[in-house]
Amino acid sequence: MSAPLVSFSDLREFARSCYTRAGVAEEEAAIGAEVLATTDAWGVFTHGTKLLAGYLKRLRAGGLHPSGSPKVVREGGAWVVFDGNSTLAHPTSVKAMQWAIQRARIHGLAYAGLRNSCHFGAAGYYAWLAAREGLIGVAMANDIPSVAAPGSRGAVTGSNPLAYAIPARRHDPILLDMSIAKVAGGKVFAARARGEPIPGDWIIGADGCPTSDPSRFPMEGALLPMAGHKGYGLALLIESLSALLTGASMTWGVRSWSHHDPGLPTLHGAAFLAMDPAVLAVKGDFAERVSSLIDEIHASPRADGVERLYVPGEIEWERYRQQIAEGIALPPDVIPPLREAAALSGLASVV
Amino acid sequence: MSAPLVSFSDLREFARSCYTRAGVAEEEAAIGAEVLATTDAWGVFTHGTKLLAGYLKRLRAGGLHPSGSPKVVREGGAWVVFDGNSTLAHPTSVKAMQWAIQRARIHGLAYAGLRNSCHFGAAGYYAWLAAREGLIGVAMANDIPSVAAPGSRGAVTGSNPLAYAIPARRHDPILLDMSIAKVAGGKVFAARARGEPIPGDWIIGADGCPTSDPSRFPMEGALLPMAGHKGYGLALLIESLSALLTGASMTWGVRSWSHHDPGLPTLHGAAFLAMDPAVLAVKGDFAERVSSLIDEIHASPRADGVERLYVPGEIEWERYRQQIAEGIALPPDVIPPLREAAALSGLASVV
Repeated sequence: MSAPLVSFSDLREFARSCYTRAGVAEEEAAIGAEVLATTDAWGVFTHGTKLLAGYLKRLRAGGLHPSGSPKVVREGGAWVVFDGNSTLAHPTSVKAMQWAIQRARIHGLAYAGLRNSCHFGAAGYYAWLAAREGLIGVAMANDIPSVAAPGSRGAVTGSNPLAYAIPARRHDPILLDMSIAKVAGGKVFAARARGEPIPGDWIIGADGCPTSDPSRFPMEGALLPMAGHKGYGLALLIESLSALLTGASMTWGVRSWSHHDPGLPTLHGAAFLAMDPAVLAVKGDFAERVSSLIDEIHASPRADGVERLYVPGEIEWERYRQQIAEGIALPPDVIPPLREAAALSGLASVV
Repeated sequence: MSAPLVSFSDLREFARSCYTRAGVAEEEAAIGAEVLATTDAWGVFTHGTKLLAGYLKRLRAGGLHPSGSPKVVREGGAWVVFDGNSTLAHPTSVKAMQWAIQRARIHGLAYAGLRNSCHFGAAGYYAWLAAREGLIGVAMANDIPSVAAPGSRGAVTGSNPLAYAIPARRHDPILLDMSIAKVAGGKVFAARARGEPIPGDWIIGADGCPTSDPSRFPMEGALLPMAGHKGYGLALLIESLSALLTGASMTWGVRSWSHHDPGLPTLHGAAFLAMDPAVLAVKGDFAERVSSLIDEIHASPRADGVERLYVPGEIEWERYRQQIAEGIALPPDVIPPLREAAALSGLASVV
């Protein structure tokens, strides 16, 4: 059975309607829906409309406020700290990155910090907003701990997403969206659901030692950081820029957006950086050099059996174009949460 | 036989004398020597005075100019691009980071790009300059390709170092200095010298497939990136900020500082970012929160047999204090290049 196809506009409209029914204002609902549907169009289904029902539950329970704008806490020419006022994180994050883009056009670079936010979905979306306008974008956020430090018995840092996007002249933007965990928790859950062991370097068990048994995760143990101390180290940089600098909660002070009391704010932090090559580089030179780099990589010798070398984001952009044209092929695990979102909203499900 | 102990000041004075004998001006020679000796004091012997002889050879052959200051190519309030004029990269990089620190104090954050530079040694040194002044520092550089992309037959990106430093109230700065390669090339050389195989996920061989045979590296094959596509993706971000944006050479346009014609410039690029918490955060709050995070990590449960959990840089700071007090314990592989530097300079060797 092939995956059900839903048009991008139908999926976006469904999410928008769910948000407005939950009391979210028109503009924020439209932006929030755009982020989720675009994420699905890239094929990043773990962070798209699959999560809508969870956000709706927080909106209904009061942990997310349906209305109320983010406020500027402190501001300079090239930097700002927003308080998200515990509203939907996606529109607030869009606003923060747009602020950074506008100021980077003046100052060459700009930083927008965000506190009192929630789970913001795919970090790559916000980085891409900058690249779409010709700027370099970086987005990151902290989260409740799920990843071990070298030698720890349990989780010490969040999986702290980090994304960047870089505009090119003759290609789609380079776009990397990663977590500092070695693998996503979802991969461990999936193996557990299938009753299968996992590779021995994905998680630690209750004793702090690596294990191939996923059966007790995440009640016990933690994900391992990517590249050991390097992933752990990057997690602390992300924590510092998104939480320590902004006044957001850090580590265990963050609540899980999905499994903690939906009536309470999650207190996530995030950080957005934009740099404008039109200011910093010789005009037009940067995007051309990025395209030259991409051409060089595409033309590099390949290992036997490898058909293409990709730059980060290239696979997502190909999926994006196909799914915008032909419809989004929603995988089976996205259907039940979409139906739940429909039921919560008193709407017919989009699938 | 225990490692020979050399005092920090003797080692620094030796490096300074070598540089001045090669025609480097007093101020640049002193800074260059300070960087190398400090790197050794941290125990990062791969990037300290071991490299002095190689730099001296480039200075004598003309690939590195002994005199001539870096010049500002373009400048705004919060950003600058320097041309290093193919002089010694360490003093130029110090100058670039100091520029970024001064401007971040005014604008909250600042970027200093550097082109026409050379190998700048330990990226962590420049990041630390910011943290020493209470700011967040980030330093990075590109290099001649030595690391594969996923699926490539050979090297595609440099090992592109990335370092950050974050000041704390009651602790040494958090300090991470990493390369985007899974392991340092030096570890592969060492295994080759011992005639031993290496783990199967460190390098690819001539066919682009992973191999445990180090015998043909680096003539054939390449290092694997850390965490696969994530390390490769970070390499492209570093390449963009340090080379594409600044006008430095990219990838294969960079010459090796150690094994290409020492009479030619290497054309490396580098990038330095500083962010000032005294501007961006509530006064005093940031460094206190960093210390709270470090305390929390130190108090986290440990796996059986693990005595301590470390934050990045903690091991280096302990070595630093010990070696500043008791002398620097130079490992055997550092002695011959130090003696070579002495011979090149007509000086008695420090060891």
